[in-house]
Amino acid sequence: MIFTVAQTQLNLGAIGKNFSKCMEIWHEQDGKSDLIIFPELALTGYPLEDLVENLDFLKACDEVLQEILTRSCNLKSAIAITHPIRENKKIYNALLLIESGKILAKIYKSYLPNYGVFDEKRNFSRGRNNNIVEWRGKKIGFLICEDIWKDEIPAKLAAQGAEIFISLNASPYDIHKAKRRANLANRIVKNHKLPLIYVNSCGAQDELVFDGGSFIMNTEGKYIVSPSFWQEKIINSDFTKTVSSGFCEESTPASIYNALILGLRSYIINNRFKKAIIGVSGGIDSALVATIAADAVGPENLILVKLPSKYSSNHSILDAESLAKNLGVNPIHLPIQKSVDVVLAELSPHFGDVPSDITEENLQSRIRGIMLMALSNKSGAILLSTGNKSEYACGYATIYGDMCGGFAPIKDIYKTQVYDLCRYRNKNMPMLSCFEKLDVIPENSILKPPSAELSHGQLDTDTLPEYNVLDKILYELVENNQSIEAVVEMGYNRELIIKIYKMLKISEYKRRQAPLGTKISIKNFSKDRRYPVTNQFEIL
Amino acid sequence: MIFTVAQTQLNLGAIGKNFSKCMEIWHEQDGKSDLIIFPELALTGYPLEDLVENLDFLKACDEVLQEILTRSCNLKSAIAITHPIRENKKIYNALLLIESGKILAKIYKSYLPNYGVFDEKRNFSRGRNNNIVEWRGKKIGFLICEDIWKDEIPAKLAAQGAEIFISLNASPYDIHKAKRRANLANRIVKNHKLPLIYVNSCGAQDELVFDGGSFIMNTEGKYIVSPSFWQEKIINSDFTKTVSSGFCEESTPASIYNALILGLRSYIINNRFKKAIIGVSGGIDSALVATIAADAVGPENLILVKLPSKYSSNHSILDAESLAKNLGVNPIHLPIQKSVDVVLAELSPHFGDVPSDITEENLQSRIRGIMLMALSNKSGAILLSTGNKSEYACGYATIYGDMCGGFAPIKDIYKTQVYDLCRYRNKNMPMLSCFEKLDVIPENSILKPPSAELSHGQLDTDTLPEYNVLDKILYELVENNQSIEAVVEMGYNRELIIKIYKMLKISEYKRRQAPLGTKISIKNFSKDRRYPVTNQFEIL
Repeated sequence: MIFTVAQTQLNLGAIGKNFSKCMEIWHEQDGKSDLIIFPELALTGYPLEDLVENLDFLKACDEVLQEILTRSCNLKSAIAITHPIRENKKIYNALLLIESGKILAKIYKSYLPNYGVFDEKRNFSRGRNNNIVEWRGKKIGFLICEDIWKDEIPAKLAAQGAEIFISLNASPYDIHKAKRRANLANRIVKNHKLPLIYVNSCGAQDELVFDGGSFIMNTEGKYIVSPSFWQEKIINSDFTKTVSSGFCEESTPASIYNALILGLRSYIINNRFKKAIIGVSGGIDSALVATIAADAVGPENLILVKLPSKYSSNHSILDAESLAKNLGVNPIHLPIQKSVDVVLAELSPHFGDVPSDITEENLQSRIRGIMLMALSNKSGAILLSTGNKSEYACGYATIYGDMCGGFAPIKDIYKTQVYDLCRYRNKNMPMLSCFEKLDVIPENSILKPPSAELSHGQLDTDTLPEYNVLDKILYELVENNQSIEAVVEMGYNRELIIKIYKMLKISEYKRRQAPLGTKISIKNFSKDRRYPVTNQFEIL
Repeated sequence: MIFTVAQTQLNLGAIGKNFSKCMEIWHEQDGKSDLIIFPELALTGYPLEDLVENLDFLKACDEVLQEILTRSCNLKSAIAITHPIRENKKIYNALLLIESGKILAKIYKSYLPNYGVFDEKRNFSRGRNNNIVEWRGKKIGFLICEDIWKDEIPAKLAAQGAEIFISLNASPYDIHKAKRRANLANRIVKNHKLPLIYVNSCGAQDELVFDGGSFIMNTEGKYIVSPSFWQEKIINSDFTKTVSSGFCEESTPASIYNALILGLRSYIINNRFKKAIIGVSGGIDSALVATIAADAVGPENLILVKLPSKYSSNHSILDAESLAKNLGVNPIHLPIQKSVDVVLAELSPHFGDVPSDITEENLQSRIRGIMLMALSNKSGAILLSTGNKSEYACGYATIYGDMCGGFAPIKDIYKTQVYDLCRYRNKNMPMLSCFEKLDVIPENSILKPPSAELSHGQLDTDTLPEYNVLDKILYELVENNQSIEAVVEMGYNRELIIKIYKMLKISEYKRRQAPLGTKISIKNFSKDRRYPVTNQFEIL
C-alpha cells in the first residue's frame, strides 16, 4: 500500500485556492498512491477562530466538500482530510476518508486544545467516535492533531487492532516543537509497535508559522521518511525503502530565522501587499527587520527610510546608510527635526512649566510613525514595526510611534536573540531566503551599545538593565511563569526582578494595541499570554 | 435564617482592598446575619485571565484565604465566597462556605463558559462535586454563575432535597442581560419550587461592566428583594417581608448610559488616572464622549482640545466651543494646519505624482493624535478615543489618528445609538452621573450631517451608506451572525450588504490595534468576535 504525505501550505479562508491545490496533487498522484494525506483543515486553513461559525463560510465549506466528492468519482486514489462539519448545530473538526464519491469514514477530533495560542473549545465540539477504520484490507488509526498528544486515543486505536497511525496536523512552530514532536512520535511507535505517518502543514497565519516537518516513522522509531521543513513537499512511501536516514534538526538560529521569513512573507503576500516600508535608524533591530524583509520579499520590494533628528549620531546615519547599501536599496532621507520643532512649538504653550520629559521623546518617535504611515498609505506598502520582545515586555517602545506598523517581525525575539540572529544571518543563507547575500548587517550596528537616540547621549541601559540580565529574568517571568521568589533563588537581585515585573505589568495596555508578529517562542505576547490590562495585583 | 446579599464592587487583582471590604461588611453584619453572600471571585476580581496562573498571585490567593479563616474565628456570621483554589496542579473556581475558622463546604464550578467574552476553560478545571450543603438545619443548593444557566445543576440540587438556591455571580452586562436573568430566575424557582438568592458584582474590568442587579425571588417568581443596579448594596432578608414590589427594568438608553459611565470611570480610576483628555471636533461622537467623561469623573477633570484644520467648518468650531461651555471647561485651542503643512512639505517630494488621497486625510487625523498624546504624556491624563461601533466595523477611522487613546468609551455603540444616547442625556440625568446638568450636547451637533472634515465638503455618506441602513445591516452581520442571503431576504440590497461585509473584513487589522472600550452589546469587537486578520475567504 502506498501512502502520500502531502505537506501543503496553509491559506486561511482561500477555499477555492486550497481546493485547486488539493485536486492538482490528487490528479498527479492518482494511480500512484492509495491514500493521499493532507494536513489538518487543509481546505480552510487554521486557526479559523470565529470565521468557522460564519454561515457563509460554513456553506462554502459544505460546497467544496460536495465538489471534492463529485470529483473523486473519477479518481482511483483516496484522500484523508479534515474539514469543518456542522451537525445538529454543532461544528466538528472531522477527518474524512474519501474515495470514489463516498465518505468512507468520518471521525471527529476528540481533544480540542484550549491553552497557549489555541481556542478550539470555543469554536468546535468534541467528538467521541475515534475508532479504527478498515480500508483496503488495512486497519488505520487516524489521529487529528491534539489527539496524538493524549495517550488515551492512540492506546484505544491500538487496542482496536490498528496496524498504522495516521496523524493530520496544523501544528504551529515554536523553537522546541520539532524536538517535542520527534520525542512524542518515538514514544508512540515504540509503545504501540505501530508505524506512524505524521502530516503537518507549512505556511503561516497571522502570528503562527507552520513548519511542516512531516514524516513517516517505523515501529523502531526510525524515519522511513525523515522530516522536511518549511516548504511544501509531496512524498510517496510504500514503507519498503527509507527516504532519508534520520532526523536532522536545524540549528536554532536557522530555524528561528526561517520562521521569521515565512511568517513575514505569508503576512505580506496573503494580505495582498507587494512592498514593505522600514524606518532604518542605524540600530540593530531595524537592521535585522530590513534584512528579514529582504529575505522574505526581496530587497527590490523594500522602501527604507532614514528619519534622523538632532539626537541622531553620525554613526547611526552612517550605519543606516551602509545597511541600505548592503541591501542595494536607495533609502529615502526624511529628517524629522523641522516637523518636531513645529509641532512642539504649537504644543509648548500648553505644557506649562513642566520640564522636558518622555513627552518630547515620544513626539519624535510619533513624528517618525506618521511619516512612515504616510509613505505606507501613499505607496500601498506595509509598514513594518521594528520592536523586539524585550522592548514589548518592558514597554520600552512608543505607542503610535515606533510601534506603528502592520506587522512586527521580531516582536517575539528577545534583544539577545536579535544579536544572535544578526550574527547568524551575516554568515549564513537561510533556506527560505530569496536574497542571496551575506554580511548585510553592519558590524557597527551589532557592536555599539543600543540607544533609542531620543535625547542626548541616551542609552537603553539608562532605563533598562543590561539585556543579557533583562532577557534572562524576562524569560523566567514570561516563558517559565516563575514566581519572583524562584527567580531570586536563581541568583538575581530581588529589586531588579520586581522592577522588571512591574514594567511587564504596566505595559500591558501597549501590547494590546501592538501589531501582530510571528510567534517563535513557547509564550508570545498575544494569544499565549493573556493578562488583564486593569490589574491591581501588587508584588511587594 | 437571615441572608445577606452583598452586592460588592469588583477590583481585579486588588486582593488587599477586596479583603478589607469583605471584612468590613462581615463585621458590620456580624450577629445580624447568618450568611453573607458575596459575588463570584469577590476577593480577586473577574475575569482574571492568565493572571490566575501566576504563581505569586496564587500564593496571594492562598494567603488571603488563610487570613479570612483566621479572622472568621471571632465572628458569628458565615460567608459564602468563590475563590481560585489550586489542587493537584489544577485550578478550580471554588465556592467556600466559611464559618468559625473552618471551610464547611467546598464546591467547584462545573460549567466553565468558553464562548462570547469568556475563556474559563483556558484557566480553570471543571468540578463535578456540586451537591447540596446542609448547614444550620438548611439544605442549600449553591450555584456558581454559569451553573445556574444549565438545567442539569439546579435539577440535581433540587433532587438532593435543596430548600434554597444561592447563586454567586460575576455576570457581565449587556443590553439584554437583565431581562434574560429575570426570565431564567423565574423558570428556575417555578420549575423547582425553590426560592433563589442571586448575587452579582458591580463595577467594571477592562471592557466588561457588571451591573449588579442582585435579588431574592420566591417560589412564585416574585421578588422578595428586587434587583438594584450599578451600585454596591448590602441587603438583609429573612424572607418575611418584601423589600420592593417588583422588577423595574430601566429604559435602554439609561441602562446603556450608566454602563458607559461605570466602564469609563472604573478604567480611569483603577488605572490610576485622574484626568481625561478628549479632542472635541464639534461632531456628535466627541460630544458624547466628553459628556460621558464629565459624568464619569466630573468636568473639572477633563481637558478638552479643539484641533481645527483648514477643512474645519465654522459650525464645527462653534459647536465644539458651545459643548465646552456647557461642560464648563475652557478648551485648549491647538490648530493643526501649520504642523500638517510642514510634515506634508517634508513628505511630498517622496509622494511622486500620486494625487492627494487618503494619505493627506489620515495625516491630519494623525497630527491630532500625536498632539493629543503629547498633552496626555505631559499631563498624565488618559486620552479618550471617540470612535463608535459603526466606524470600527467599517474601518472608517484612522489608525494612529483618531483611534489613539487609552480607552474608547463608545466603541460598542453604533452611530444610530450615539444619537439616541445624546438625546437621552440632554433630557435625563443618568443615575451614576456626577455631573448634574442637562442639555449639554449642542443641538447642532446632533442635527447636522456627520462629517470627518478631512477634506472640503466631505460627508460620512460619501464613503458609507446612511447610518440607519448601515447599522441595521451591521447588526445582522455582527450581532446576529446572519448570512448574506438572510440579510438580502430582509429586503436589503445585495451589493450594499457585500460592500459592508467587505469593509468589515478588511478592517480587522485596525480593530486589533484599537483601544479597549466598554461592552454593552451582545457581540463586541474584542473578545466576543474573534476573526483572523489574514482572511482570504471571499463572498462573491
